[in-house]
Amino acid sequence: MDSQLQDYDPINGLKPSENCAVIGIYGNDTVFFKIYTSLRTLQHRGQEASGVAIFDGEKINALKVDGLVYEGFRPYIEKEIVPKGNIGIGHNRYSTAGIKNITGAGPFLISTAMGDMAISHNGEITNYQSLRDELKEQGVPFVTTNDTEVMLNLLARTIRQKGIKNGIRSSMEMLQGSYSAVLMIGEKMYAMRDPKGFRPLILGKAGNDIIISSESAAIDVLGGTIVRDVQPGEVVEIYNGDINTLFIMRSQRISHCMFEYVYFARPDSIIDGVEVYNSRYRLGVNLAKEAPVEADVVIPVPDSGRTQALSYAAELKMEYSEGLFKNRYSERTFIMPGNKERDSAVKLKLNPIKSVVQGKRIVLVDDSIVRGTTMKRIVALLRSFGAKEIHVRIASPKIVAPCYFGVDMKTRDQFIALNKSDDQISKEVGADSLAYLSIEGLVNSIGMPKKSLCLGCLTGEYPVKIAGEKEDIQTTLEL
Amino acid sequence: MDSQLQDYDPINGLKPSENCAVIGIYGNDTVFFKIYTSLRTLQHRGQEASGVAIFDGEKINALKVDGLVYEGFRPYIEKEIVPKGNIGIGHNRYSTAGIKNITGAGPFLISTAMGDMAISHNGEITNYQSLRDELKEQGVPFVTTNDTEVMLNLLARTIRQKGIKNGIRSSMEMLQGSYSAVLMIGEKMYAMRDPKGFRPLILGKAGNDIIISSESAAIDVLGGTIVRDVQPGEVVEIYNGDINTLFIMRSQRISHCMFEYVYFARPDSIIDGVEVYNSRYRLGVNLAKEAPVEADVVIPVPDSGRTQALSYAAELKMEYSEGLFKNRYSERTFIMPGNKERDSAVKLKLNPIKSVVQGKRIVLVDDSIVRGTTMKRIVALLRSFGAKEIHVRIASPKIVAPCYFGVDMKTRDQFIALNKSDDQISKEVGADSLAYLSIEGLVNSIGMPKKSLCLGCLTGEYPVKIAGEKEDIQTTLEL
Amino acid sequence: MDSQLQDYDPINGLKPSENCAVIGIYGNDTVFFKIYTSLRTLQHRGQEASGVAIFDGEKINALKVDGLVYEGFRPYIEKEIVPKGNIGIGHNRYSTAGIKNITGAGPFLISTAMGDMAISHNGEITNYQSLRDELKEQGVPFVTTNDTEVMLNLLARTIRQKGIKNGIRSSMEMLQGSYSAVLMIGEKMYAMRDPKGFRPLILGKAGNDIIISSESAAIDVLGGTIVRDVQPGEVVEIYNGDINTLFIMRSQRISHCMFEYVYFARPDSIIDGVEVYNSRYRLGVNLAKEAPVEADVVIPVPDSGRTQALSYAAELKMEYSEGLFKNRYSERTFIMPGNKERDSAVKLKLNPIKSVVQGKRIVLVDDSIVRGTTMKRIVALLRSFGAKEIHVRIASPKIVAPCYFGVDMKTRDQFIALNKSDDQISKEVGADSLAYLSIEGLVNSIGMPKKSLCLGCLTGEYPVKIAGEKEDIQTTLEL
Amino acid sequence: MDSQLQDYDPINGLKPSENCAVIGIYGNDTVFFKIYTSLRTLQHRGQEASGVAIFDGEKINALKVDGLVYEGFRPYIEKEIVPKGNIGIGHNRYSTAGIKNITGAGPFLISTAMGDMAISHNGEITNYQSLRDELKEQGVPFVTTNDTEVMLNLLARTIRQKGIKNGIRSSMEMLQGSYSAVLMIGEKMYAMRDPKGFRPLILGKAGNDIIISSESAAIDVLGGTIVRDVQPGEVVEIYNGDINTLFIMRSQRISHCMFEYVYFARPDSIIDGVEVYNSRYRLGVNLAKEAPVEADVVIPVPDSGRTQALSYAAELKMEYSEGLFKNRYSERTFIMPGNKERDSAVKLKLNPIKSVVQGKRIVLVDDSIVRGTTMKRIVALLRSFGAKEIHVRIASPKIVAPCYFGVDMKTRDQFIALNKSDDQISKEVGADSLAYLSIEGLVNSIGMPKKSLCLGCLTGEYPVKIAGEKEDIQTTLEL
Repeated sequence: MDSQLQDYDPINGLKPSENCAVIGIYGNDTVFFKIYTSLRTLQHRGQEASGVAIFDGEKINALKVDGLVYEGFRPYIEKEIVPKGNIGIGHNRYSTAGIKNITGAGPFLISTAMGDMAISHNGEITNYQSLRDELKEQGVPFVTTNDTEVMLNLLARTIRQKGIKNGIRSSMEMLQGSYSAVLMIGEKMYAMRDPKGFRPLILGKAGNDIIISSESAAIDVLGGTIVRDVQPGEVVEIYNGDINTLFIMRSQRISHCMFEYVYFARPDSIIDGVEVYNSRYRLGVNLAKEAPVEADVVIPVPDSGRTQALSYAAELKMEYSEGLFKNRYSERTFIMPGNKERDSAVKLKLNPIKSVVQGKRIVLVDDSIVRGTTMKRIVALLRSFGAKEIHVRIASPKIVAPCYFGVDMKTRDQFIALNKSDDQISKEVGADSLAYLSIEGLVNSIGMPKKSLCLGCLTGEYPVKIAGEKEDIQTTLEL
Repeated sequence: MDSQLQDYDPINGLKPSENCAVIGIYGNDTVFFKIYTSLRTLQHRGQEASGVAIFDGEKINALKVDGLVYEGFRPYIEKEIVPKGNIGIGHNRYSTAGIKNITGAGPFLISTAMGDMAISHNGEITNYQSLRDELKEQGVPFVTTNDTEVMLNLLARTIRQKGIKNGIRSSMEMLQGSYSAVLMIGEKMYAMRDPKGFRPLILGKAGNDIIISSESAAIDVLGGTIVRDVQPGEVVEIYNGDINTLFIMRSQRISHCMFEYVYFARPDSIIDGVEVYNSRYRLGVNLAKEAPVEADVVIPVPDSGRTQALSYAAELKMEYSEGLFKNRYSERTFIMPGNKERDSAVKLKLNPIKSVVQGKRIVLVDDSIVRGTTMKRIVALLRSFGAKEIHVRIASPKIVAPCYFGVDMKTRDQFIALNKSDDQISKEVGADSLAYLSIEGLVNSIGMPKKSLCLGCLTGEYPVKIAGEKEDIQTTLEL
Repeated sequence: MDSQLQDYDPINGLKPSENCAVIGIYGNDTVFFKIYTSLRTLQHRGQEASGVAIFDGEKINALKVDGLVYEGFRPYIEKEIVPKGNIGIGHNRYSTAGIKNITGAGPFLISTAMGDMAISHNGEITNYQSLRDELKEQGVPFVTTNDTEVMLNLLARTIRQKGIKNGIRSSMEMLQGSYSAVLMIGEKMYAMRDPKGFRPLILGKAGNDIIISSESAAIDVLGGTIVRDVQPGEVVEIYNGDINTLFIMRSQRISHCMFEYVYFARPDSIIDGVEVYNSRYRLGVNLAKEAPVEADVVIPVPDSGRTQALSYAAELKMEYSEGLFKNRYSERTFIMPGNKERDSAVKLKLNPIKSVVQGKRIVLVDDSIVRGTTMKRIVALLRSFGAKEIHVRIASPKIVAPCYFGVDMKTRDQFIALNKSDDQISKEVGADSLAYLSIEGLVNSIGMPKKSLCLGCLTGEYPVKIAGEKEDIQTTLEL
Repeated sequence: MDSQLQDYDPINGLKPSENCAVIGIYGNDTVFFKIYTSLRTLQHRGQEASGVAIFDGEKINALKVDGLVYEGFRPYIEKEIVPKGNIGIGHNRYSTAGIKNITGAGPFLISTAMGDMAISHNGEITNYQSLRDELKEQGVPFVTTNDTEVMLNLLARTIRQKGIKNGIRSSMEMLQGSYSAVLMIGEKMYAMRDPKGFRPLILGKAGNDIIISSESAAIDVLGGTIVRDVQPGEVVEIYNGDINTLFIMRSQRISHCMFEYVYFARPDSIIDGVEVYNSRYRLGVNLAKEAPVEADVVIPVPDSGRTQALSYAAELKMEYSEGLFKNRYSERTFIMPGNKERDSAVKLKLNPIKSVVQGKRIVLVDDSIVRGTTMKRIVALLRSFGAKEIHVRIASPKIVAPCYFGVDMKTRDQFIALNKSDDQISKEVGADSLAYLSIEGLVNSIGMPKKSLCLGCLTGEYPVKIAGEKEDIQTTLEL
C-alpha cells in the first residue's frame, strides 16, 4: 500500500480519528510500563502521538507525548515522572505530517460529577458533527474538534442519566460509524465495540492482569494469553478482576474491516478468530489461482507484499525471490531546496537485486494499490535494471470508494483504479499485465462470510447509511 | 524578592493560576505577530508556557507552546504555521519547575452552541472548586484542574442562559477572588476585571487596533497609546472598532495588589494611574525617612532593589553604588551529581565590587523578603569581602500571610518574618541592623488610599472572605 | 548476527575505525546532495556520525554531523548551509553507544603546504600506534586517537617527500591492516585499496560524474553504472574526468572479508564481482546440503537470515515461512528505572506467527552467531509458543577469533562457539539441534578461491602478521 | 556598545579568535566542576562554544560543547560523562551568528612526542597566516583555520627543539599580536601573556588550588584570593603546587586594551591592578568634567552605560534615573517571514519610563559607540515619549580604526565616528548635542600611563606593526 500524508494542521485542530491503537490494562501493580510496552508493540497503528491515562486510586492522570512511543515517553521515564496506579489505558494516534502537537491526542480525559472518565478510541464516528451540535445545545463545551471527545461526552451524559449499563447502551444507539474503545470510569474499565465490529478489539490475561487490546500481539508481548475477541456490539465490564459482558447490542449485519487483514494489522495478530498471517498467505494463494502468469520469478514489494508473494509463488511452484532491497533508513524524506530528492525517494528506499531482475520475467506482488504513484516508480525502476516483463499482481480488489470507518482514504479522485480497467491501470503503471484479486477471492482468503465484512471501499456500498453513498442492502438481505 | 519554585506536576495537572500575563488585540490585519510581541514584552509575568487564540472569521484557533515565548513559537513561525486572523488573545503562564507541558496552558478555548469562546485569565478564583463541582453537577465536563477552565465554562453557561451582558454579570456574581481576563466570543472581545481590581488590566490603541493588556508596556512596544485602565468590576466590550463599557459591578472596596508596585510589574508600566517606577522611587524615599542609618554607601540587591536603593540614597544624600555585580548568565542552575553547585548559586549570580564593599558600612536595599534564604547568603558574601557593617533595608513591609489572589506564596511557614521582630530577623540573616518599610509608608509610596489596596499578605486580613482567614473589616468600614 | 555495543567514550576519544562507509564523487556540478544521498544509501554501514568534505575551487570545506545522515544534515540543508563545490567525499561511521560526538568523525581533513587534503577511510590500520609514534617523533601533532588521522598524515608526509605516486606507494608500504579509502588532494581524487583487498571499493559513473563507493548500491541510487572494482593494492587517480590506475601494489595473497557477504553489505550490492544476494542464497543452499534436517517449516531470524532460510528451504523443498514478525519500531531500547524492559527487548522486537510455530518442527536459520544471547531468547520464545522441535542452522562457520580488520569483534571471550562443539552450543541456546556451515561451504557460496578470502575470525589464522596471533601460512603457500 | 554579529560560517571555518575567556586550574581534586563554574562566571566573554581539557594522570581529554556553558554541558553532567582529573583548562568562545558548531572551539589539544598538550588562548595572533605557512612547510598539518592551532603547534615545535623554557621564549619571539593563554604540557601548566599585555590574565589561589583566569571574578566565585596579575611578557609555570616565573620577555611598551575597562570585562574584576568598576566610575566623572550639560536628568543606556551615567550625574550633582527599562527576555531576535520584527527589536529591548522622560532635558550616557545604529533608535524612542532635549554623552573616545588584537571591529567603514565631527554625529543620531570623552580623559580614568595602553582603535596608531597601518611611534618614544 502506498503511504499517504494527511493534511494535518496543528492550528485548526484534528480531523476525525483514523485507525489507531487502543489498550487497557486492569492490573495488580504498576501498570505504566505495561501500557508503554503495549503501545510500542502497536506502534504500527499510529506514530503521531501517544498517551496513557491511569487511575491513581482517586482520580485519573494522563500523560501525552508526540512522536514515537519510545522517543516521546523517554524524558518522562528517565526523570521517573509517569502516572502511577494499577489500572489504565493507552492510545497511539495515526501518523500525520508537519509539526507534531499533542493537543487532542488520546486518551481523552474528563472530570465529571461521577468522577474522572477517560477513553481510548479506535474508529471513526460518522455522525459526530451532529452529536457534537446536540451536546453543545445541551451545554457541553468542546475543547477539540475530535470525534473521541464527542463520544466521551455523550457517554458521560447518558451514563449520568441512566446508569452505566443503560447509559452506554443509550450512547451506542446514537453513535454511528466504527468504534473499538476502552472506557474508564474511575477504576472501572469497559471494552466497547460497535455493533458492526468494524475495528478489532480483543481480551487477554497476563498473570492476574486483564488486557484489552486492538491486537493480540500486545497480549503476546506482555506474556499473556488471549481470552477472546470482544464481540460486535458487546460491552464488557472489567472490575475486581472479573470480565463480565454488560450487554450485546446485536446488529443485522457484521462488517469487519477487510483492510486489517490485507494491510493494517500485524501478521502475528489474531483478529476475530483469524490469524492475519494466514489470511495474507491465502490472499497470495487465491491471487495465484485467479491470476497466474508465466514468468521467471515472483518478487514482493517489501514489506507489504511479502507474505502474499511467497504464497503466490508456492501455489504456482514458481521461484520466489526478494528482488527489491528495502533500505531501512529511508523512511523519512524532505524536500531539499532547489533539489529533486523527493523524486529519488523511491530509489533511496528500494533498489533491485540485479541477478533477480535482469532479463527476467517478473511477477511483482503487492497487498493493495491506492494512488499507484509508488507502483509506477517501482515498475520503472525494475525496467531500468533490465526486467524483461513485469506482471503486477495485487492481492486485494480494486479500491474505488472512500472509507468512512477509520482508514485514511477520503476522496474518490485519489484512487488509480476508479473507472479504469485492469489494462488501463497496467498501462498507467507501465506494466506488461496487471491483475487484482476478486472480491470473492478476498472473502475466501479471510475465511469469513462476505456479510461479515465491510467491503465499502471496494464496492462503494456501505454497511451503514452514509449521506451521498449507497447502502449495502444486498448483503443485508442475505442475512 | 527571592524566587520560589512551584511544585508542579505534569501528571497531576496544574495548581490554580498564578499571576501571569494576558493580552487581547482587536486588530485590522494579521494579529499573530502583535500578540507574539506583546507576550515577549510581558515575559516577566510568566515563563512556563504561552499561547495565542485567534478568530479566523469563523472559528477560534489556538497555538500553545512551552518555555519562553521566543523559543516556543520559533519553529511555528519559521514554518509559517501560525493562527491566522485579525482578532485574538494571548497568555503567558508563570514559571514552574520540571518538565514543561502545555496541557492546560492559556488561553483556554471551548466550542459551544454560541460559537467558539476563548479566555486569557490572570488571577486566582478562590471558590473555583465549588463552582467546578456545581458545573459538574450540571453536566459540564472538565479536562484540566485549572480555575480558568471553570471560569470559562461558568461564563459559557450564564451567557447562554441570559445573554452576554447579564450572563457575564451573573458569572461575576458567582466568581470570588481575582481575575483580570480577556474573553473572546467569536469575534467579540471582552475585558473583565473583578470588582476589587486585584490584578491590573489596561486598554490601549495602536493605529486602529484596540489593545487589552496586563501592563501598559505592551501598548508602548506596539507603538500605541494608553486609553485607560479597565475599572474594577468593569466589563468592556470591544467590537467593530468600538470600546464600550457593558457594565460596572461596583464593590464596597477596591483592593489593588500592592505587590505589582513593589516587585511584579515592569517599572515602565502605568497601573491604575500610577507609574510603577515612580512608586518604587517613593518606596525608597519613604524607607529612607523611616529607617535612615549612618553608613558609607547604599547598594541594591540587583535587579529588584535598584530603584528603591537609588532613591533611598538620594533622599539621605548618601553615596549610591552598584556594589553587587549580577551575572546575566546565571539564571538557571541544576544540582550536579555529588556536587554542591546549588550552594554556590548565589556566588555565581552575585559578586561584590571590592572597592565598594571592603571596609565599608553598607546599606543593603531590596524590594521585599519572603523566605530570607537569598538575603542570608548575600549578607555572608558581603562580609566575606570585608564589609564593615551591613544594614538591611527592605522597601516594603513584612510578609506574614499567604496570598490567595495570584502571588505564589501559599503557606505561612515559609515566611522569615512570621512572628519575628526586626532584630530577630536581622540576626537570622546576619546583618547589623534590619528594617522594613511601614504599611503606611508603602501606602503613601503607591499613592492610593489604603482602602484601595490589598494588603492581605502584610496584615493577614483579606478584602474577601477566605475560609480560615480574617476578613479585612476595618478598611471596609472606612469607606 | 546479534548486535553489540561498542564501549564508546566521548571524552577519551575513539577506538580505531570500524567497518564503515566511504564515498567520493568527482562531479560536474553541485555534489553535496549526491554525497548526501549516497551516505543515506550506505547508512547500514554506519549510524553514529557522518561527514562530507568538498573542494570549493580553492580549499576543502567539511561538515560533520552526528546521528543518522537524514537527521544530522537536516538543519544545515534547511538553512542551506552546506559545502559548495563539485568534487567531494563522504563518510559514515559505525554506530556506538552513549552520547554522540562528532569529534574525530570522518572525513578527516588537514591543510598542508601542498594544499588541503581529506580522506574517508574504511578499515583498520593494525600498526597505527607505532606509525603514530613515529610521526609524532617527526613532529606531527595529532588531534584525535583515530587511525584515519595517522593514515592521512603519513600520506601527507610521504607525498610531500616523493610526489603523489611514489608517496602513496611509500605510505602503503608502511600501512598494515585494511583500508579502502578515498583521498582528496585539492581537486584530485584517489581511490586506495590495501593489497589484501579486505574491504570493498568500487568505481562507477553517473552521467559525467565519477563515483567511488564502498558498495555499488550507492552507484545504483545515483542512477549510475558500475565501472569496476578497485583492485587490491590499486591506487586510482580521478582527475579531469579520467580514471587512471596510478599503480597496483600486488600482494602474495588477497583476503576479501567474508563477512561482507555473510552479513555486512547490502544484498543488492556487487562486491568484487560477486552479487551479495547471490552469495547469501548459495549460503542457504550449501547449508541445506551440509545440514539438512527433517522438519515442518524453515523460518528465518529476520531480517538477517531471510535469504539464507529461503534458499535452504528451496534446496530441500521444504516449506518456508516468515514465522517471526519483526517490529520495525523496536530498534531502540533503554533500561527503565526499576524495570526489566531490557529483558523483554527480544519480545518487543520479535513475535511468533502462531500458526507457523505451534506444534511444528522448525528449522531456524540465521546468518551467523557471535555471542548467542539473542538466539537463546528466540529459541525460548518459539518454545513458549508451542514449537515442537527447533533446529538451529547457521549459514556461516563458527566465529572463534577476533577481527583486526574492521569488524567489531575484538575479544575471544565473547564468542559462544569458542571451544564448544555444535551439541554444546545447541544445548546452550536450548535447541534440539544446531549446525554451522563449513568453511568449505562458505567459500563455495561466495564463489572465490579460499586464498582470496580473509577467514581469520573463523580459523584464528590471519593473512597478515598480528602480534600474538597465528599467521595464515598455509593459504599463502597455496599461491 | 552596540552589538555586532560576526559573519560566521560553519563550513568555511572560523575567523581568528576574538576576545574570549581562558581558565586554568591546577587542583588537588576533581577539577571539572570548578572549571565549569569558572566558565559560567566568565560567560560574558564568550557564548558561542565552550570546552574543557583535563589531564587524567596519563593523557589529556577534552570535552567541547556549543552554546552557553550551562546548556552545553548539561547533558554530559546529567549522564556523568565528564573528563576526570585534577588539572585542567577551559575556554569560552565569543558569540557568533547562525548554526553553532564546535569544530575548532577551545581548548585546542594535540598529542605529540612530548605527550599531550592543550591550550586555551585569548587574543589574536596577527601573523598567524605566515606562521601557519611556515609550519606547513615544515610538515605540520592543520585541521582548522584558527590562530590558536598555529600557536599550539609553534609551541610544540620550539619546545621540542629547545626545551620548555627556551622553546616558549622562542615561540614568543615569533608570535605577534595579543595572547593571554594557558598551556598544558601533560600535567604542567603555563600561563603566558604577550609582551605588550593586551589581554588580561591573573593568578589566584583557592585552598590549595592554583587558578589562572582571564578575570579575577572567577577567582572570587571559586572562593579564592588573587595572587597577582601575570605580567606582560611573563611565562609562569604551575607545577607541584608552586608558581614560578619561567622568564619575562620585556617589551619597550606595554599596551593593555582600554576596551576591557570601557566595556568588555565584568565590573567586579580587577585587571592589572585596576578595578574595572572604579575605572568606569571615573570615566563618568571625567566625562562630566569635560562635557557637562544643563539638563533635568541623566539616564544610562542599560546595562552598558549605567556606572558611567551614575558618576556623571554625581559629579555634576544632577538627578540620575534609570529612564530606560531593559527587557531581560529580549536578547534574541530573528527575522519573521514577511515581518518587521527586527526593526522593533530596540523597542522590545528598551522602553522608556514616562515620568523620567516626558518633557525632560535628558543626558543619555553610554560606554561607547561603534556603528551608532542602536543609539539612533534609542534617541528616536526617547523623542517619541516626549523627551524635550537629548544630549548624548559617550564615556570613551571616538572609535575610528580597527582592532587587530581581539575586539570584533575589523573594518573602518562600520564606524559612525569616522571622519565626522561631534556635531555631525549628533545630527546623525538625532540628538541635540553629543560629546565623547577625550583620550586624555580615558587614560586618566583608567589610571595608567598612556604608554601602557593600547589605543589603536581610537588613534589608528598601533603598538605593533600592522601591514597598512601606522605604528604608534610617539608613545614608544615617550618611554
